[in-house]
Amino acid sequence: MTQTQPLHDVTGLVQPLLDRLNRELAGDLRPGHVEMNPLIEHVAGFRGKQLRPVLTFLSAMSMRGASHSGGIGDDVVTVAKVVELLHTATLVHDDVLDSASVRRRIQTINHLSGVETAVLLGDYIYAKAFHMAVQLPDPTAARWLAETVRVICQGEITQILHRFDYQWSEARYFTVIAEKTASLYAAACRLGGYYSDVRGANEGRLRALEEYGLELGIAFQIVDDCLDLDGDEEVVGKSLGTDLSKGKITLPMLYLLRDEGQAQKLRDLLGTSEAEGLRRLKAEFPLEHAIAYAMEEAQRRIAKAQASLTQLPEGPARTALDRLAGFVLTRRT
Amino acid sequence: MTQTQPLHDVTGLVQPLLDRLNRELAGDLRPGHVEMNPLIEHVAGFRGKQLRPVLTFLSAMSMRGASHSGGIGDDVVTVAKVVELLHTATLVHDDVLDSASVRRRIQTINHLSGVETAVLLGDYIYAKAFHMAVQLPDPTAARWLAETVRVICQGEITQILHRFDYQWSEARYFTVIAEKTASLYAAACRLGGYYSDVRGANEGRLRALEEYGLELGIAFQIVDDCLDLDGDEEVVGKSLGTDLSKGKITLPMLYLLRDEGQAQKLRDLLGTSEAEGLRRLKAEFPLEHAIAYAMEEAQRRIAKAQASLTQLPEGPARTALDRLAGFVLTRRT
Repeated sequence: MTQTQPLHDVTGLVQPLLDRLNRELAGDLRPGHVEMNPLIEHVAGFRGKQLRPVLTFLSAMSMRGASHSGGIGDDVVTVAKVVELLHTATLVHDDVLDSASVRRRIQTINHLSGVETAVLLGDYIYAKAFHMAVQLPDPTAARWLAETVRVICQGEITQILHRFDYQWSEARYFTVIAEKTASLYAAACRLGGYYSDVRGANEGRLRALEEYGLELGIAFQIVDDCLDLDGDEEVVGKSLGTDLSKGKITLPMLYLLRDEGQAQKLRDLLGTSEAEGLRRLKAEFPLEHAIAYAMEEAQRRIAKAQASLTQLPEGPARTALDRLAGFVLTRRT
Repeated sequence: MTQTQPLHDVTGLVQPLLDRLNRELAGDLRPGHVEMNPLIEHVAGFRGKQLRPVLTFLSAMSMRGASHSGGIGDDVVTVAKVVELLHTATLVHDDVLDSASVRRRIQTINHLSGVETAVLLGDYIYAKAFHMAVQLPDPTAARWLAETVRVICQGEITQILHRFDYQWSEARYFTVIAEKTASLYAAACRLGGYYSDVRGANEGRLRALEEYGLELGIAFQIVDDCLDLDGDEEVVGKSLGTDLSKGKITLPMLYLLRDEGQAQKLRDLLGTSEAEGLRRLKAEFPLEHAIAYAMEEAQRRIAKAQASLTQLPEGPARTALDRLAGFVLTRRT
């Protein structure tokens, strides 16, 4: 069994919807001028696990206790497409921020066409996503997602403003990762549930889906931050150690900073090159303890996400959401 | 009389609305985390002539033949704020694209806080603007403006893809400047008119306002492209010659490229440093003819903009729009 097999079992339930989403997105993004086509097609290559649209679809199904993807309306598909496009726009801009040259083993837009094109292409995709959102007759998604993007940027900016800030706390770390990462997961889940049956929308169930997405997203980011320190570059498919070199203080580092002796050594190490930083971190620090500490927090978040699912009707979609949460803890990419 | 006096006479009519807009924007942009405050306050310093909200307000008044700004509703103010914020977001990203260090004599965000913060702050302001737009009960502005931002980015990307492209034509130049610059002027005018009286919205008048904004915006960009080649850096307040150094082929250059002998010399000059490029352009080319040629086109556009105003009721707002169009041709900043 390959490593992505468990996820495939989960997404199989929504595969017809995912296929439709990817088919439609290719047409939706078609630009006004043909010379932009190669850029738009290149960006499609960044699509990975498509976790966010999977969550939107499963949330829509679980809201109604549906056992198959039939009967999921056009509005849910639109929400899933908008969420996926917003995520794509953040990736294009993230690659500019990180001066990254490779994403998912293909060239980034900034590497391929320059920083200017990458900034503008991200803006283009954001605008396209908002334009799709405001076509929905019910403005809830457009309002919620515009606020979500504001919150994502707020989280990212706050993290940048606190690089190399040794007063940084776990509480602020959790706030920032909830904003920059988990808020879009929460929106994907809540809005999938909302648009599956607007008239029958049950606030208790919507809150449960939102909570599930939020805790799942927090756990996802904690695992991401662990992989940046102890992942296998070949498997993860992107360069690691960037948090260390950029002075972004993540949960495993906060654990190490608790010890006064280690703290001084870690301060000296932050800002050095990725390779050197990772080598010394592995050689001179109890990295496995720091990772274990962070992963325990991720496990607690996943347990909380799974617990909130009990508010939803039983059925294959709820089971899939439960298994998907478990997958977050074991992922290596 | 100072150079901005004529514009001041025009904007006096909407000064109470502009004051309200600036007062409200300060509160609207207040961020979730206090450490972002200095960034938000710094960006407020980029505000210049505020041409776009002035156009929204004058369009709203002229639609009804109103002689004063009383009776202009909250929705028009919201549209003007959204248009101003979208423009601000494009400025923040433009400064990243141009690696500019100064805007309106203050530091750019990328110079002050780095490229990462500038990219994210632009995204933050876009998201805030869209969030304000989707609060309007009538979704027309949100839909129109999301599409406008997509078109702006499309125009900017197309221009970048055609740098140093000596097959570039006047037709494509006009398409690109209509997209990247004039589309937001057109939206500011049309939506101001639309929200001044949604139920009484008269498509003929709205089209006239849109046409006025479009032609005004095209003329504005032509003048901008002339100032980049023959403006006074002290007066314009930003570094000039950037189109030359970046290989962006503007209308005066298209004129010079018509002559085969000059064309080869100009090709050699594109891509050199700003100072050297400008010095040689002024010394070795009939620059005054090229500027005169471009300014004649700008004049034709302004005449077209003014002609479209005849579709609107007479009154001080219409007169102000007419004078504002004339101002575009004489501006030196």
